[in-house]
Amino acid sequence: MLKTHHCGQLGKAHVGETVQLNGWVQRRRDLGGVLFIDLRDRTGIVQIVFNPDFSGEALEIADRARNEYVLAVRGKVVERAEETKNANLATGEIEVQVSEIEILNAAKNPPFFIEDGIEIDEALRLKYRYLDLRRPEMQRTLMLRSKAAKIFRDFLDEKEFVEVETPILTRSTPEGARDYLVPSRVHPGEFFALPQSPQIFKQLLMVGGLERYYQIARCFRDEDLRADRQPEFTQVDIETSFLSPEQLQEMMEELMAKLFKETIGVDIPRPFQRLTYADAMGKYGSDKPDLRFGLELVEVSDIVAGSGVKVFSTVVGNGGQVKALNAKGCASWSRKELDDLQPFAARYGGKGLAWIQVKDGDWKGPIVKFFTEEEKAALTERLQVEEGDLLVFSADKPKVVADVLGNLRLKLGKDLGLIDESQFKFAWIVDFPLLGYDEEEKRYVAEHHPFTRPKEEDIHYFDTDPGKIRAQAYDLVLNGYEVGGGSMRIYKRDIQEKMFAALGFSKEEAWDKFGYLLEAFEYGTPPHGGIAFGLDRLVMLLAGRSNLRETIAFPKTASATCLLMDAPGEVDSQQLEQLSIRVAVKQPSSSQ
Amino acid sequence: MLKTHHCGQLGKAHVGETVQLNGWVQRRRDLGGVLFIDLRDRTGIVQIVFNPDFSGEALEIADRARNEYVLAVRGKVVERAEETKNANLATGEIEVQVSEIEILNAAKNPPFFIEDGIEIDEALRLKYRYLDLRRPEMQRTLMLRSKAAKIFRDFLDEKEFVEVETPILTRSTPEGARDYLVPSRVHPGEFFALPQSPQIFKQLLMVGGLERYYQIARCFRDEDLRADRQPEFTQVDIETSFLSPEQLQEMMEELMAKLFKETIGVDIPRPFQRLTYADAMGKYGSDKPDLRFGLELVEVSDIVAGSGVKVFSTVVGNGGQVKALNAKGCASWSRKELDDLQPFAARYGGKGLAWIQVKDGDWKGPIVKFFTEEEKAALTERLQVEEGDLLVFSADKPKVVADVLGNLRLKLGKDLGLIDESQFKFAWIVDFPLLGYDEEEKRYVAEHHPFTRPKEEDIHYFDTDPGKIRAQAYDLVLNGYEVGGGSMRIYKRDIQEKMFAALGFSKEEAWDKFGYLLEAFEYGTPPHGGIAFGLDRLVMLLAGRSNLRETIAFPKTASATCLLMDAPGEVDSQQLEQLSIRVAVKQPSSSQ
Repeated sequence: MLKTHHCGQLGKAHVGETVQLNGWVQRRRDLGGVLFIDLRDRTGIVQIVFNPDFSGEALEIADRARNEYVLAVRGKVVERAEETKNANLATGEIEVQVSEIEILNAAKNPPFFIEDGIEIDEALRLKYRYLDLRRPEMQRTLMLRSKAAKIFRDFLDEKEFVEVETPILTRSTPEGARDYLVPSRVHPGEFFALPQSPQIFKQLLMVGGLERYYQIARCFRDEDLRADRQPEFTQVDIETSFLSPEQLQEMMEELMAKLFKETIGVDIPRPFQRLTYADAMGKYGSDKPDLRFGLELVEVSDIVAGSGVKVFSTVVGNGGQVKALNAKGCASWSRKELDDLQPFAARYGGKGLAWIQVKDGDWKGPIVKFFTEEEKAALTERLQVEEGDLLVFSADKPKVVADVLGNLRLKLGKDLGLIDESQFKFAWIVDFPLLGYDEEEKRYVAEHHPFTRPKEEDIHYFDTDPGKIRAQAYDLVLNGYEVGGGSMRIYKRDIQEKMFAALGFSKEEAWDKFGYLLEAFEYGTPPHGGIAFGLDRLVMLLAGRSNLRETIAFPKTASATCLLMDAPGEVDSQQLEQLSIRVAVKQPSSSQ
Repeated sequence: MLKTHHCGQLGKAHVGETVQLNGWVQRRRDLGGVLFIDLRDRTGIVQIVFNPDFSGEALEIADRARNEYVLAVRGKVVERAEETKNANLATGEIEVQVSEIEILNAAKNPPFFIEDGIEIDEALRLKYRYLDLRRPEMQRTLMLRSKAAKIFRDFLDEKEFVEVETPILTRSTPEGARDYLVPSRVHPGEFFALPQSPQIFKQLLMVGGLERYYQIARCFRDEDLRADRQPEFTQVDIETSFLSPEQLQEMMEELMAKLFKETIGVDIPRPFQRLTYADAMGKYGSDKPDLRFGLELVEVSDIVAGSGVKVFSTVVGNGGQVKALNAKGCASWSRKELDDLQPFAARYGGKGLAWIQVKDGDWKGPIVKFFTEEEKAALTERLQVEEGDLLVFSADKPKVVADVLGNLRLKLGKDLGLIDESQFKFAWIVDFPLLGYDEEEKRYVAEHHPFTRPKEEDIHYFDTDPGKIRAQAYDLVLNGYEVGGGSMRIYKRDIQEKMFAALGFSKEEAWDKFGYLLEAFEYGTPPHGGIAFGLDRLVMLLAGRSNLRETIAFPKTASATCLLMDAPGEVDSQQLEQLSIRVAVKQPSSSQ
């Protein structure tokens, strides 16, 4: 008895029809001789009614059904009596009078309710993911994800991009995150690696003349996880030849606008705002600023350098900077709130935060007495100080000031309700530095990756001051998240060699790791560049969720385990033997 | 100077226009003062002309260009003089008079010509895959693949399937092929496995109420490779709830017809032929018969059981069978050709092949004298014997007879030109046995996989004769290849437990390996089933190629290596240490 209709799509138009439905028991109500069941499938819920008048046999069978039983029913769609219509239910105007029923499968009582908004331990949801996925909000999110992927693909197909699958079993080139490794059975002692991205393959496809490539690609990073990281994640991976960064960005803006319009009906204005990395860090203390609110960081080094506040003058003297945030209306903060600023600063590497309360017509706080009237006047003008304000100062190296005040800005934005949650504020962050100096490794590392093209006019800095080189790189940020990132790539061997040298690779190391790429550059490589979007994160933002796991059917926990299948797990010693590897620790006891 | 047009799409309609092109030098001809270059991009080739009349400077620069240089040019499209038009070239009516040129990149002389039909060592093509991919036939195949994937997706989207990504890092459940393993860093001594298919995940999605799922999924098998296997391969993975096998098959026929029509313009008649496994094995000696020609195997056990041919009567007496093929027109085979039948039989496990030549109005061959006239008459009628025929007999266990004669049938089909290469003959093979007996392991193994649903009416055989159970399984075959396979799945815990028991799992083993699935079956699992198509193989057949590697951008060799990146490779000892594993063989010397 297979379905002729979906539960959630029945309505007044079907009144009088005989329909067959398949679904799960959401709820049953026994009114003594009459039984009501809410039957659920992925489209929604409909009320079905059992009554000896329709079929005594059906009622008898239905009486055995409990929550989450799987039913097949046949019955007639009738309009409900006016007083029993349910305006909260899409199908609330009708019900189905059941003449025939089959119990397709029974169900134990599930460990949590199959409904939206349940507040239970996420671990339980992940262990019983197959039940969690029955909840409408999870199904909606997965369907939204499916639709988003289709919009990406349709758009890119229309723009003549070719979808190409690149290998999952590839070669380890650790630079940045750790690789997942796969021992080779056929080649003992050798390993494949799972790709952190298809970066090199997509570049080789450009060398191969494919011209426009895309792939919705699985990527892998063996990192210690945070809430918004997964060991495997999905990116929409795009590469083109013969396009300028501006042409590519314009096309991607069109794509984003289409994505938001067709999934959630939101109009995204274009062109997107463009911010240099320097400006983003300067104004927002972040390279992925949330632009839904202002509250910009303001440099006051020049005003306070000569002040009596020792730490300010010392820091500025040593090449550091002093910046301030004006937290409007926060002069009324309690002592505890003010004290909490110190551990907050420490969390982001700062030594502390100085503050001034502007209340009762006066400036209050420990540092006020060290300022001259001129300095106060200058600060008042620069920070647009008014009664009720709280001025917060950070003095440190620019990176630390940005981290501390950038995060304080975000916290204040949330706490003070400055963020319009209905808004989607895209921006391109451009002119990233090509290289960053790693104090630990005592060498330059690539800010994006080693294949990012430097700006033509900065190439000469390779010989003098590599840290000054700006990259032809661009990130797409949305509401404080990086949702995409890309760059023009190096396509000339000599520049790629300069880059490897700047990263501290010897010629031999460079050749050993990337010889095939350097060689490829000698056979007619076109100028090319691309971008990759984080699909998990975009879907999270589209769905209004705050956790990547909600967007993935079978996610892993923060300790990279699958609670459903209990993976990873131990394997037969025979399997390891075939792979010529041995476990180098005592095996944990055989518990879960 | 970015392209305004594609090289291969210019024509008479563009005459008079100034265009910008980007592409590679396919060929240059210097006619002394005038230079012709064939410029290639992924759309094709156009002739561009340099002449001091258009620009002396451009000619001078172009003179430095060699094969595979990357050029950007600007010029005017003009119609060629009638006598210089090239009918073999899509753009042969026009040429572009270049006024401006930029050499975007230089190229060394490539190790092979960038053109179709080159006959060079495949290893060289794989090492320089980025050059191989510039060849038009490779680009056409990749574009065909991209288009095929789109057709699959559009069709399935339209039928309300939800695309869901399932994990690549999952749990090892070896049953069938070997798993690729991935050591966990966070959980020392434990391993992920790469999925051989998303089978269990897609079933759990059905438990989760998704109802219709698809994914173009990467799958992994660590097997010893043959020409038509790859360590990682792609399947179009489909699963539904609440559909009958017939409904699913009908939908899939519609999908295949659409795929063939929209990629290569071929009309596929529907409904597809249906053959039981028993019939396929009986008539064609194969469960993936090539139905583009007849030449069926004919059972003659009854006729020859009492004959004087000892081996025939013995085999039949022992429960074996005798079958024959009538190779029309092969009576003229040479002694050598006839002798070669013996090693051919041996290759497929047979002890030999008997033969009879029907020529010069007589039956000739060593066994003829052992037949009575009645037996000859019966054979003549059964095998429709005529002058010029060659009758070939195999006597053995049914499986061996099928293998030997099935393969002989294929060889004869090819050798005798019986196959119409323009045809695409689909068929469903149904009623597969659920279990096969593994003589080595002395136990039953699943013919498809352990989740295949048995036919209702055969379930009682679990207790008496499991080998007799037929599965609700179906393969889709095309021209001698299995291009898809699927089944209805078990959705009741007791049947799944019977299945595990039949496979020789103890209750503990079954629970240890598949406990989560058995548990899931208790929470309201709907009846469900699905199918998976081999995308690599379908594309191979669509593109008219005979090797899966031609359909994959970056394939692996038969020894599972990537010649381009030289993967797998050795890794740092530090990486292994972090993963708590050790190589258990002497590392090979540090050569490539």
